[in-house]
Amino acid sequence: MAYTPRHMKWWGWGDEDAEFNPSAHPGFWPYAKEALEIERDDFRVREWNLESIELPEAFHDEKFVSRLRSFLDPGQISDDRKERVIHAYGKGFRDLFRLRRGLAAGAPDLVAYPKSERDVCLILRAAIERDVAVIPFGGGSNISGCLERMETGRMVVSLDMRRMRRVLEVDTRSFTARIEAGVFGPDLEAQLNAHGMTLGHFPDSFLHSTLGGWIATRSAGMQSDKYGKIEDMVVALRMVTPEGELATRTVPKSSNGIDIKHLCIGSEGTFGVITEATMRVHTRPQRRAVPGYLFPEFEAGIEAMRECVRQECMPAMVRLNDPDKTALSMAFRPPSSGVSKIAGSLFKGYLRARRFSLPRACLMLTAFEGSEAAVGRQMRQVQSIYRKCGSVSLGASAGKSFEASKYDFPHIRDFLLDHDVTTDVSETSTVWSNIVPLYNGTMTVLRDAIEKSGVCPWTGCHISHTYQSGASVYFTFGFRQHAGGEMDQYLKVKKAVQQSFIDHGATLSHHHAVGTEHLPWLADEISSLGVQTITAIKRSLDPTNVMNPGRLQPSQNAFEDWTNLANRTYPGSAVRGLRVDDLVARRRNHE
Amino acid sequence: MAYTPRHMKWWGWGDEDAEFNPSAHPGFWPYAKEALEIERDDFRVREWNLESIELPEAFHDEKFVSRLRSFLDPGQISDDRKERVIHAYGKGFRDLFRLRRGLAAGAPDLVAYPKSERDVCLILRAAIERDVAVIPFGGGSNISGCLERMETGRMVVSLDMRRMRRVLEVDTRSFTARIEAGVFGPDLEAQLNAHGMTLGHFPDSFLHSTLGGWIATRSAGMQSDKYGKIEDMVVALRMVTPEGELATRTVPKSSNGIDIKHLCIGSEGTFGVITEATMRVHTRPQRRAVPGYLFPEFEAGIEAMRECVRQECMPAMVRLNDPDKTALSMAFRPPSSGVSKIAGSLFKGYLRARRFSLPRACLMLTAFEGSEAAVGRQMRQVQSIYRKCGSVSLGASAGKSFEASKYDFPHIRDFLLDHDVTTDVSETSTVWSNIVPLYNGTMTVLRDAIEKSGVCPWTGCHISHTYQSGASVYFTFGFRQHAGGEMDQYLKVKKAVQQSFIDHGATLSHHHAVGTEHLPWLADEISSLGVQTITAIKRSLDPTNVMNPGRLQPSQNAFEDWTNLANRTYPGSAVRGLRVDDLVARRRNHE
Repeated sequence: MAYTPRHMKWWGWGDEDAEFNPSAHPGFWPYAKEALEIERDDFRVREWNLESIELPEAFHDEKFVSRLRSFLDPGQISDDRKERVIHAYGKGFRDLFRLRRGLAAGAPDLVAYPKSERDVCLILRAAIERDVAVIPFGGGSNISGCLERMETGRMVVSLDMRRMRRVLEVDTRSFTARIEAGVFGPDLEAQLNAHGMTLGHFPDSFLHSTLGGWIATRSAGMQSDKYGKIEDMVVALRMVTPEGELATRTVPKSSNGIDIKHLCIGSEGTFGVITEATMRVHTRPQRRAVPGYLFPEFEAGIEAMRECVRQECMPAMVRLNDPDKTALSMAFRPPSSGVSKIAGSLFKGYLRARRFSLPRACLMLTAFEGSEAAVGRQMRQVQSIYRKCGSVSLGASAGKSFEASKYDFPHIRDFLLDHDVTTDVSETSTVWSNIVPLYNGTMTVLRDAIEKSGVCPWTGCHISHTYQSGASVYFTFGFRQHAGGEMDQYLKVKKAVQQSFIDHGATLSHHHAVGTEHLPWLADEISSLGVQTITAIKRSLDPTNVMNPGRLQPSQNAFEDWTNLANRTYPGSAVRGLRVDDLVARRRNHE
Repeated sequence: MAYTPRHMKWWGWGDEDAEFNPSAHPGFWPYAKEALEIERDDFRVREWNLESIELPEAFHDEKFVSRLRSFLDPGQISDDRKERVIHAYGKGFRDLFRLRRGLAAGAPDLVAYPKSERDVCLILRAAIERDVAVIPFGGGSNISGCLERMETGRMVVSLDMRRMRRVLEVDTRSFTARIEAGVFGPDLEAQLNAHGMTLGHFPDSFLHSTLGGWIATRSAGMQSDKYGKIEDMVVALRMVTPEGELATRTVPKSSNGIDIKHLCIGSEGTFGVITEATMRVHTRPQRRAVPGYLFPEFEAGIEAMRECVRQECMPAMVRLNDPDKTALSMAFRPPSSGVSKIAGSLFKGYLRARRFSLPRACLMLTAFEGSEAAVGRQMRQVQSIYRKCGSVSLGASAGKSFEASKYDFPHIRDFLLDHDVTTDVSETSTVWSNIVPLYNGTMTVLRDAIEKSGVCPWTGCHISHTYQSGASVYFTFGFRQHAGGEMDQYLKVKKAVQQSFIDHGATLSHHHAVGTEHLPWLADEISSLGVQTITAIKRSLDPTNVMNPGRLQPSQNAFEDWTNLANRTYPGSAVRGLRVDDLVARRRNHE
């Protein structure tokens, strides 16, 4: 049976038939209403009509298309409306907000599905000859704006990699697997599991993202504390560029000059197309446990994480919620049975007796993976550290609830969008000594920026992905939309939080990529000369600038471009001259 | 008191007053004589006379030197004969053989000792203005030819970094330290130890190499299994290039496009000068133990190493000698006392009873580091694995002997050079499934190449630096010199072993760098496009090619250049037209 590529719904996250079910989480909407000061319930149920989308007329280079037809099957090319809309954007707020308002300025003119590295080479050759831009596309789950076309005036083809999905070779003796780049998370794990192996890479987007996308954006899985970030897992790779192939050897470590792999990892499609990678894999763990803990305050939880580093007993995953994120988690839980309600109130009494202040309490989920013996031993050591930091064990139930819904969180964003609430996330990383200053400083900046737009902020934070020197710090925020100024409102908030990361010495993004969202700050992050060097590499590997143009190269007017791109209602905003908010307001008045 | 930079002796490894003491290792010379079929003992004791060295006249650009004098103290510049000779080469066979024959074609014209990043910037600016080439120099311990001047026709300055030796900042909460690049290993550890910290990087060259050199060449310390290779330890760095400064942020991990750090790590001085780095550091381990084990054969030891990876209990160091390297280690041991001699023969009896074939037995040294509890636990688990693979414990004595002499091995090479024996090492890495084929194949190639030159080969190998996917494989070889053709003989052997690495899918070098020695194979290793991209980066960061010219950029005639460079008797070999072997033969006849 032929493999049918599966796309996410164009108007939101996940499969078309999957969405957030408020009745399964009855506490959530009341919590959100209170937190966001929402006073109404009369939200219209939307019907998503593909035909209502204002899709730019496709730029059609007949010679390019007929060249493609000479070596691709008819099913490997499409300019179908739905395909173009799906490939227009990733899944950021900016992306979904525009699509849901019928705006698809980012859409490519054509989608091509290569089946082999040879297909990729030939498509690139044709693109160079006809000056067609190529945007590599994996699962389309990126939320930093890596997938939107940034320029007009020439044809753009989205190179959808999902038909290159085979695990080509598993070397169980060496714990390596050679894998095509377009494979999705679950498909990849199923193929590896057949050999008793796992990659150990489970990002929140796991169900809907691909190996090539992970590598091109420096993704992090939930268990990165144990298995590493994706860049730590790549043993060798191949990248097809307009100038030929970059390929490295399958060797564990080397001293062969600068590490060429790192010219490909994180390149966000702008130098070439990653076609395959040889990855470190692991025997599947005998046991996995995800107990929950409650800490009396955020700082105590952070101290516990750091102490695990110091004592060299880092679990596979630690995920510490701040008090607001803890409250959100509690509100998100499925309804309790009678018995567990009684147990719940007894537990609350116990917490009070231990002088826990519930509004300051922080949930910590911790995953242990390995042999029975190793998991048991590590749990004892970690729990001893946690206890010294004042924690209370919540047992396995918190973890079970997390495990059951860990890939579902992005659905909440769609649900809130349906209720005229903007939510987004901005994540960074910093060293241990800077986590609390960064957290406090950014929270202040974030809440101020939201309040300035005249609405009540909801903000939360969790710490995850710990390393020897620090951790990822992940902010989630939400607020009622300012009718008629939604995009402007969003941009101001997003700008404030990213600027705070830079001002506090943290990084632009820990695992979401630069894309368009973080581009204006790139020189702050890697120095002007760093940006200049990326441009030099780009010119060398892609002299005619066909590969995902505009990426990793901020212009002189980066902030202006940043705003303009978000407000573009048509490819080349000058064509229409209207900002997204204007257009949305106009449509609203006509409704 | 002013810090006085300490140089190694120009004619060999280590301090001027340190050398291999054969009477402390009475078994060594008899072993070497037998193994290498040496029949004489009438070797002349050499007196090393600096004045006998044929030092090329210094190329002196007066404007450049007076510019340097305008911002450097007089003590920061030298064109002294000894300084020039010391900075002419690293410590490879090619380097020492030539110096010992009075040939210093690689010598710079001047040595400058910057004290600050500002000094480095100003020196580079002056170099660009006057078209002077700059070769960064750390401890001078490199053995791959990273330090020799490759071109003539303009002035060359050696930029000796050792006065930039301060640990600038230790963040004990974040386990990071910001460190100037020119600090030597022992000096660095002393400064970190004062904060209770260690870098955990102990390469064989530890006493005589610098942080900047480690980063520029992708060094590996003996305990890399636990602490990582140097590239895994760099949190942030600064590199001064002719176009300005590349600088990255002090953050644990990021998704900020391609990782700019990796444009600096491994750049071998050809893009710029690494001036400082923020490194991951660790609390000093409570306990360190280095027990020894004997395995019945090489494959069993490899299997034990791999099983430690599979069971996720990798020690801090594992070092498995093949049978010949084991015999060498035994011959190298200090003389036994009467009691231990008796114990030794009892032990031999025990081994025979366990059906150990002594000529096939392999010594494995294993280091454990951490808390008392963790070391004890890990030792039990590792020993259980080792036992299942047939090992016999040698207790702590083998480890103690290793610990006592671990930095002394390079002295043996000098001793053997004194006895007209060429020795060298070539090391690589490969995946677990390829270690035995690589080992067998390379051993055959190596022995054949030596035998072809008409002498008896000594070859040995050890496996160290284990990773999830494989390990480093380290070959040591020695042979009697073919009088009158020493360099030619060496080059043929070296070429054969490097070609074997490439043919067997392994890497050019695991931690010794590309330099001049491995340059001809660079495109085999990282693809032609990889080399082309390095050239593009070089052009961007160093448009006038002042930084360590010729590095990481093989020419069209890379193999010819490789031979010519080794045979160069004067900067620009055409000046003299004699090969090293010719010149050496001529001198020998005049002696």
